Amino acid sequence: MFSFKLLKKDPLTNARAGKITTYHGEIATPAFIPVGTQATIKALTPEELKGLGAEIILCNTYHLYLRPGHTLIESLGGLHKFMHWDYPLLTDSGGYQVYSISANQKVSEEGITFKSHLDGSLHFLSPELCMEIQEALGADLVMCLDECIPYPSSPEYTLDSLTRTTRWAERCQKSNKSSDQTLFGIVQGGMYKELREKSVRELMDLNFDGYAIGGLSVGESTELMREMVGHTASLLPEGKPRYLMGVGTPEDLVEAVRQGIDLFDCVLPTRNARNGMLFTSSGKIVIKNAQHRSEDIPIDPQCTCYTCTHYSRAYLHHLFSAKEILSSRLNTLHNLAYYLTLMHTMRTAISEGTFTHFYQKFYTSRATSDSEPRGAC
Amino acid sequence: MFSFKLLKKDPLTNARAGKITTYHGEIATPAFIPVGTQATIKALTPEELKGLGAEIILCNTYHLYLRPGHTLIESLGGLHKFMHWDYPLLTDSGGYQVYSISANQKVSEEGITFKSHLDGSLHFLSPELCMEIQEALGADLVMCLDECIPYPSSPEYTLDSLTRTTRWAERCQKSNKSSDQTLFGIVQGGMYKELREKSVRELMDLNFDGYAIGGLSVGESTELMREMVGHTASLLPEGKPRYLMGVGTPEDLVEAVRQGIDLFDCVLPTRNARNGMLFTSSGKIVIKNAQHRSEDIPIDPQCTCYTCTHYSRAYLHHLFSAKEILSSRLNTLHNLAYYLTLMHTMRTAISEGTFTHFYQKFYTSRATSDSEPRGAC
Repeated sequence: MFSFKLLKKDPLTNARAGKITTYHGEIATPAFIPVGTQATIKALTPEELKGLGAEIILCNTYHLYLRPGHTLIESLGGLHKFMHWDYPLLTDSGGYQVYSISANQKVSEEGITFKSHLDGSLHFLSPELCMEIQEALGADLVMCLDECIPYPSSPEYTLDSLTRTTRWAERCQKSNKSSDQTLFGIVQGGMYKELREKSVRELMDLNFDGYAIGGLSVGESTELMREMVGHTASLLPEGKPRYLMGVGTPEDLVEAVRQGIDLFDCVLPTRNARNGMLFTSSGKIVIKNAQHRSEDIPIDPQCTCYTCTHYSRAYLHHLFSAKEILSSRLNTLHNLAYYLTLMHTMRTAISEGTFTHFYQKFYTSRATSDSEPRGAC
Repeated sequence: MFSFKLLKKDPLTNARAGKITTYHGEIATPAFIPVGTQATIKALTPEELKGLGAEIILCNTYHLYLRPGHTLIESLGGLHKFMHWDYPLLTDSGGYQVYSISANQKVSEEGITFKSHLDGSLHFLSPELCMEIQEALGADLVMCLDECIPYPSSPEYTLDSLTRTTRWAERCQKSNKSSDQTLFGIVQGGMYKELREKSVRELMDLNFDGYAIGGLSVGESTELMREMVGHTASLLPEGKPRYLMGVGTPEDLVEAVRQGIDLFDCVLPTRNARNGMLFTSSGKIVIKNAQHRSEDIPIDPQCTCYTCTHYSRAYLHHLFSAKEILSSRLNTLHNLAYYLTLMHTMRTAISEGTFTHFYQKFYTSRATSDSEPRGAC
């Protein structure tokens, strides 16, 4: 069922437009994948997400394994039915959340032991369990278990870790039995180009249907992250989708699309929305700032989302100040509209051969510098 | 612009169906008015409210006076525009909130001094300021300033208070200059029938376009509350709408409609929704209870709301447990659907002369006894 079709390559950059086909539908690439950690994109309905142009969403294996449990979701007909999302769905491996959220993580050749952030209970995540959980959830695109390492890490540890991640990838591949699911390998290798190369080589030997780039946006500089993305993307096979995990700001997306990335996910637009940081075509605004208290204009006059066509900054400032639920909802709607529209604009530009023109225009239209918080996605 | 037309009287009870016309549209009565305290029905959009059948909503004068301020809302074009609700709107007097939320309240002939619950700042609410605030907000139906008294209160204090409320009503009437707004007098008198009668007489002498019944659901028994409603309603003029403030449970609404009430408001359906208490045609359920963890059925199989037609109790249990925003949203949607559908059913029954049949069926279909928390609305 799975296929990836390369539709257009930009003549001047590495940007590319394509189409992924899955059992639950198609995804035009490059695509941004909104993050629905606990089987919900916080504050929004599936209908709203489709209306915004989302063609695929992501849920976190770690969270759903712990609560409500993958076997419960399976018994209720799988994650698509559970959360009322009948379109392509991606689950991650849980490796990043074990690294960043759980406590007492311990990595061995067999897998990772960790304590739940919810109740402190002890768990053991092996590549085989990682596949079992993701098969029970039933997402269309699933990820091999990988080890996320801190930044900075020594070349010795990074090498040790990435070869283990490769061995885990092999075990995941052997363990994954679902014909409806497409398994991606995850490239690791820290900030060392030669280790990224080694990881890519080893994963390509296993011949995955798609490749994710993990272990970035973990504290390194924007420049270093982009260097690693560009280098890794250039090594990956042209005919398979490339997924940059947990990235990033609008600028990060534009740069990475230019470097040939096809898929992204990040909590930035949704989390920032709830914190009142809103993306606009001329930079970001912080809605709680006093200057917005009486502004009778939309967040972004160029935006055609429901929030921008019906509400003033003054009203959104009030909702945020009053801690109203509608604040999170209207802000999330807007920020995702911004991200998904940006991706649509890039796809169109690539298809029409005008990506470089788009790229220049994108930067000249931005009043503020690239000061978005990156954080972990 | 304002009119109230009595369309049908039930032959066996005091139930009645009517139509209120305001500048912003019509309201079929008996009607339930969802409460949008801070210029938003928590978690929902105006479009969703209209979709549920809401024809009028309520905002709290006290809250909007304190934040963001009535002059700001006026400068932005009024409350309808500010919150994107282009239909009938009601604001209360603020008297109940000053009584129940603020600190250091002190009532004098001139008005009420109180400290803001937000920042402790000192304020003075007079009948004239109450009108000024409500005129600035621009609601269609506005309320006279009244004093809410605790339960129980002595007959002496109750008498003293209600005659002051009458004098305030007169001052409000003199002060209200907007021709687009319809001013309701508020009947007080505590739990004393003769004082309720006195209050009704004095307010009827002032000839308001509508009458609210205040000071109920403040801690008295259900039986006493219903006795007061029935007695007060029977004294009010037939040709004017009767509004029972801050009431109540589904059973309270059914009983009060039977006693001839036309309008209701209460935070119960929305607040309970956020706390996971959901109304169904056979009683209420508490979604966090373990029994719902794996239930692959809707909240209420008889309900046709978006929540019930798309999500299982198991999913709603998960969202509630995970403290997800979508939990509040889907639960609120359902509970308001329940309330608004109940009102629609009652209007239809009255119009078709089958209210007594509806009344009997309503009680026989309920598996649980009337144990809903009443609380203050």
